[in-house]
Amino acid sequence: MNQLAITFDDIQAAAARLRGIANRTPVHTSRTLDAMTGCQVFLKCENFQRGGAFKFRGAYNAISQLNAHERQRGVAAYSSGNHAQGVALAARLLDVPALICMPDDAPSVKLEATRGYGAEVLIYERRTVNREEFGAAAAAERGMTLIPPYNHPHIMAGQGTTALELLEHVPDLDTLLVPVGGGGLISGCALAAHSLRPSIRIFGVETEGADDTKLSLDRGTRICVPPPTTIADGMRTEMPGELTFPVVQRYVEDILIVSDDDVIAALRFLLLRMKLIVEPTGAVALAALLRGRLPTECQRVGVVLSGGNIAPSLLEQLWS
Amino acid sequence: MNQLAITFDDIQAAAARLRGIANRTPVHTSRTLDAMTGCQVFLKCENFQRGGAFKFRGAYNAISQLNAHERQRGVAAYSSGNHAQGVALAARLLDVPALICMPDDAPSVKLEATRGYGAEVLIYERRTVNREEFGAAAAAERGMTLIPPYNHPHIMAGQGTTALELLEHVPDLDTLLVPVGGGGLISGCALAAHSLRPSIRIFGVETEGADDTKLSLDRGTRICVPPPTTIADGMRTEMPGELTFPVVQRYVEDILIVSDDDVIAALRFLLLRMKLIVEPTGAVALAALLRGRLPTECQRVGVVLSGGNIAPSLLEQLWS
Repeated sequence: MNQLAITFDDIQAAAARLRGIANRTPVHTSRTLDAMTGCQVFLKCENFQRGGAFKFRGAYNAISQLNAHERQRGVAAYSSGNHAQGVALAARLLDVPALICMPDDAPSVKLEATRGYGAEVLIYERRTVNREEFGAAAAAERGMTLIPPYNHPHIMAGQGTTALELLEHVPDLDTLLVPVGGGGLISGCALAAHSLRPSIRIFGVETEGADDTKLSLDRGTRICVPPPTTIADGMRTEMPGELTFPVVQRYVEDILIVSDDDVIAALRFLLLRMKLIVEPTGAVALAALLRGRLPTECQRVGVVLSGGNIAPSLLEQLWS
Repeated sequence: MNQLAITFDDIQAAAARLRGIANRTPVHTSRTLDAMTGCQVFLKCENFQRGGAFKFRGAYNAISQLNAHERQRGVAAYSSGNHAQGVALAARLLDVPALICMPDDAPSVKLEATRGYGAEVLIYERRTVNREEFGAAAAAERGMTLIPPYNHPHIMAGQGTTALELLEHVPDLDTLLVPVGGGGLISGCALAAHSLRPSIRIFGVETEGADDTKLSLDRGTRICVPPPTTIADGMRTEMPGELTFPVVQRYVEDILIVSDDDVIAALRFLLLRMKLIVEPTGAVALAALLRGRLPTECQRVGVVLSGGNIAPSLLEQLWS
């Protein structure tokens, strides 16, 4: 069996670095939700994380491990949004300069928040520019360390602390549902959950058209899809990561698929019934549960609500 | 020293009745908020309570103590909103018919929610009708038990479980801030907090024009004010309760006063920075803290966010 990029020790070490710095986010429950789904559901609310999403965990875990010289030169990142804010905030806390490359269609609320954390922002055109090459070039030009959005052991280990906390809070989950973009969150969470509770069943969730990880799992090798157009902007990765995918292959039972309409229904439920402000990507895992995509024998289900940085215009539509 | 309407035992008994039925609401914190106020702030999030506000606690505590005959006849209540929903929901859970008298200017979201819980709603004109008489007459006519909004030992004891939980969660608070309408919440919370931590300083908060409890405390007797017009609709009581006021007199150090603009600033902070949907009345206590109304020696401050049933139109204004 090949070595994976991270071990459970890496996740525990990340948790120690994040202690007192990242929010230990609350776990919300709802009798209405339990009645609707026939399960006991535990929502891990990363929408209440610093920077508004789980991304802060991995970013801080990565940047805090840079040496003095690297910190002085600064960090760079490419991101559709939440990773940008996570890196910008973590860099500011660690007194490290940050350059963030963002696509021209990133939600303006995320753009402004990133600048608000003191980072310099470089905009690129999503349809014509390869973001990985663009980010790498921008970092190299200034001698900055590139903080990738998911395909890095320190990122994966940091994101895994989400599931570590959830299982410390609710040890006897039988199922864990996690949204899947590039795989940073699910790889870390799957390893953490499996280590703490080997019997747990772990499912990822993607939206239609953004099913690169589903296709890759089914075929046993990483598949690249055309640029997805889903409402869940955190799902718009085209291929699972080289380091994240083997972890997903080993620990994730399957990827469930939901539509954008399913996501909107989940967002509305969260907002109107649970008073939780969640962004589309953050509601994807709950959408799968609400749509009955889980095996019926799943009874105690942990669901990661990955972030809350929703565009104001969408929030208004949901509310009215 | 005269006997108060409730004892700490009553609050503990209420907590036992509510266990597994009311939500044990989360306590949220924010580094930004701590930095802004110079304190450590702990927000008790009753906006996540069942029915969207603390009112469910008292209503359930009261209705669950009715005998079989009383339950069969049903319950009645008069309320500007959250008490209505609390009574309607508690009655439904206990299989008791409910009649709710609501003023013609109650927020429509609260009206609809009350009907949604299966209660019958009777509308009265706020400016011309005495709600207590109207509610009592409606209840008497049908042989229903009136569940008053605050001036009843079972209501006070139920609301007090809010502070009981907060101090179990954060035992070493030095200060507690609670919004004050008729005094049901603050009387129960003050007694619970004082009993668990005698050194704690307890402050109520009212809005300008709705300062009946402030005036009453200052003069040492219950004062009636003209119908208040504040944005915080839960503050629109005109006089403290006969049973609640002596508890406030004994345990509450002072009432702090904020303006409607202060409340709106607090609502915006909660929504935009903490992703918490809170209604105006629910943000009054935080508004006092943000406006620097507390003595500077207060360091570990519990703040009750009493409810989250905000009108959609106001939420949109805050967000944009």
